Amino acid sequence: MEKTTGYHVAVMGATGAVGQQILKTLERRDFPIKKLTLLSSARSAGKQVHFKGETLTVEEAVPESFEGVDIALFSAGGSVSKKFAPEAVKRGAIVIDNTSAFRMDPEVPLVVPEVNEEAINNHKGLIANPNCSTIQMVAALEPIRKAFGLNKVIVSTYQAVSGAGAQAIDEMNNQSKAILDEEEFTPEILPVGGADKHYQIAFNVIPQIDQFADNGYTLEEMKMINETKKIMNHPSLKVAATCVRLPVETGHSESVYIEVGQNDVTVEDIQEILSQAPGITLQDDPNEQLYPMPAFAAGKDDVFVGRIRRDLDEENGFHLWIVSDNLLKGAALNTVQIAESLVKLGLVTAPQHS
Amino acid sequence: MEKTTGYHVAVMGATGAVGQQILKTLERRDFPIKKLTLLSSARSAGKQVHFKGETLTVEEAVPESFEGVDIALFSAGGSVSKKFAPEAVKRGAIVIDNTSAFRMDPEVPLVVPEVNEEAINNHKGLIANPNCSTIQMVAALEPIRKAFGLNKVIVSTYQAVSGAGAQAIDEMNNQSKAILDEEEFTPEILPVGGADKHYQIAFNVIPQIDQFADNGYTLEEMKMINETKKIMNHPSLKVAATCVRLPVETGHSESVYIEVGQNDVTVEDIQEILSQAPGITLQDDPNEQLYPMPAFAAGKDDVFVGRIRRDLDEENGFHLWIVSDNLLKGAALNTVQIAESLVKLGLVTAPQHS
Repeated sequence: MEKTTGYHVAVMGATGAVGQQILKTLERRDFPIKKLTLLSSARSAGKQVHFKGETLTVEEAVPESFEGVDIALFSAGGSVSKKFAPEAVKRGAIVIDNTSAFRMDPEVPLVVPEVNEEAINNHKGLIANPNCSTIQMVAALEPIRKAFGLNKVIVSTYQAVSGAGAQAIDEMNNQSKAILDEEEFTPEILPVGGADKHYQIAFNVIPQIDQFADNGYTLEEMKMINETKKIMNHPSLKVAATCVRLPVETGHSESVYIEVGQNDVTVEDIQEILSQAPGITLQDDPNEQLYPMPAFAAGKDDVFVGRIRRDLDEENGFHLWIVSDNLLKGAALNTVQIAESLVKLGLVTAPQHS
Repeated sequence: MEKTTGYHVAVMGATGAVGQQILKTLERRDFPIKKLTLLSSARSAGKQVHFKGETLTVEEAVPESFEGVDIALFSAGGSVSKKFAPEAVKRGAIVIDNTSAFRMDPEVPLVVPEVNEEAINNHKGLIANPNCSTIQMVAALEPIRKAFGLNKVIVSTYQAVSGAGAQAIDEMNNQSKAILDEEEFTPEILPVGGADKHYQIAFNVIPQIDQFADNGYTLEEMKMINETKKIMNHPSLKVAATCVRLPVETGHSESVYIEVGQNDVTVEDIQEILSQAPGITLQDDPNEQLYPMPAFAAGKDDVFVGRIRRDLDEENGFHLWIVSDNLLKGAALNTVQIAESLVKLGLVTAPQHS
């Protein structure tokens, strides 16, 4: 598609679960697009994709694909980003990368716009979109940190299978059918595509997301720990994470314990702060059995927070329950929001009429 | 059934999910039974139940049902226990109660035999079986406490629907089928049978188990907090809990953060202690993707522990992942183990040949 105003946007990984959500989000939020280039690996090239009523063909990415691109949104795996993101930057594009390839690079801003939009100003061509579980957590914790300080975070996650891609969703549904019909099945995808062992996800819980690091933590857990400190610009923040995969299609949930920087904070103070925070919906009323759940958060933009209660032992301790759509705020929406911030901050110049 | 040796055992709630497991466990462990009386509410009276090849009829409980009973195992809800347990005790039976009715009564021992078997010696006719989530956690934490001390516990649970009874299992399975077949359904049971609102459990996560207390915690969370301190005889232990229901049929999982009483403890020290602890199976090898999961713990007696790792900020902090069958160690097995302890400690005298 070509228009006379707006930006030349490229989407790398356009046929994937997140790529599809990125296209829907660009369309829904009416991002100013002059030209849209859809890219993928050789395997998915040639597929057709719909955008604003037009049918577009996905092309195999080559370095030259990024000539003239203003903003490139990458969501095709870390190795693809490592190969092509520098090529895109070299050709003048600003890359917003949804993989973990560059997130901890000190030269690369790691951005959740509600939390650290200003970090975008320091970009050198590459901006990283954080891990899905991290985004929703920092979106909820940053308003609390700003108001009361934050010393410590211990999170246990309840993560949906769509975070592992479309194949994982199919695996969960097919296994569920097989179990209900008392048929045999062989796990092939989860917990990790390339891992040696695969386990049943239907009606089960798998305490492994991504590979294991040498310290016994998974890479997903280390992402939550390291990315949280970087996004919040709070290197001394104590963060611990346990990441767990569940038979839920979309919507990550998190049980989060925090210690704030003051001793006189009440549950009502935190509710008040979160009720006014951007991108947050407070769902917290035990009397009405109102609390966030993934079945109701899926398809929605906001981060939902509830079950806020004071720890019974630590004066500055609180517990929260945080739920959000891992494909939206956890991925596609945050990526598009970063692109919107680039426009808002004047960091990408709208090209002249061609 | 009548034999010439052993005890007269009554099972109250014999047709329920836990009652059925109690019967299987009594049979499997060959508990010395002279006479077995199966009791229930009027609604289930008349049902037939199999035990050791015999077919037994369940009778409606009346106070006189407990005449001559040595050990009565109660698992028919708190109100039934409150009504009939004192009647059983009055008639000389020792009641092992699987409900929450008497657990926090200072006169009633709350027992996990691997943890505090000696507390049984102080019984006054009533012994309480703890909450399912609590049992598996204290079974794993007590060996650590004994070796290294224990200051703090923060647990987030991943609880199976069978903890809410057979109707909840049916609801999960029926909803799962409906969702896979794109059919309508109406939640009617979970999160809490008598509550105002019911929510989808299939492919969802519900952060409510039992009713809410006034402090914003659920009763399930308060059970874990209070019962843990009582069983471990450690009133100053800091305990926090978030209890969550998942679409898993059987097997509760727990993400547990602990702070031990010493700073020089290693992961290997904890693994060593747990590998020798009664009723515990260590499943902890990231290189082999070995960790506990409910799909593999269901139907097994042990409490499975893995993902043991040192906290990255607190010198005495560790994370563990604890899984067990909530109907076995979490309920029926622990109940029968308490009965076995009564025999072992000589607290119930085998009746003479009649």
